[in-house]
Amino acid sequence: MARVVVEVMPKAEILDPQGQAIVGALPRLGFAGVADVRQGKRFELEVDDSVDDAELEKIAEALLANTVIEDWKVVRVS
Amino acid sequence: MARVVVEVMPKAEILDPQGQAIVGALPRLGFAGVADVRQGKRFELEVDDSVDDAELEKIAEALLANTVIEDWKVVRVS
Repeated sequence: MARVVVEVMPKAEILDPQGQAIVGALPRLGFAGVADVRQGKRFELEVDDSVDDAELEKIAEALLANTVIEDWKVVRVS
Repeated sequence: MARVVVEVMPKAEILDPQGQAIVGALPRLGFAGVADVRQGKRFELEVDDSVDDAELEKIAEALLANTVIEDWKVVRVS
């Protein structure tokens, strides 16, 4: 078994209303100095050792990321 | 300016219906060998150099994670 993390973030040119809401809320909660926040998703997968990197890319592309508006990155952690 | 990533994941003892839905969908889409999926959130923050680690922990705890059901981790990436 291998552990894999897939990080999915909105593309740079895509507006991120959730992140902007957080940037707006921070000063009201007394936190200064945060210039920008972007919110994305993080998936932790437990996969068989038989699953190779090409297969993982296909899984991320087909099911975990919306490729029109999101970038993704597959990282093996163990 | 420093770049900080906050990773937020459901606690191990918390059910994760989104992750389970993905585990169920994978075989139907022709992907075998994925035993478990957990879905969480990932935040990328741009912060002033004046914001220290204690402040970042407070921000994560107050605004980014639901501390009842989620674990979080603050990682400085640059």
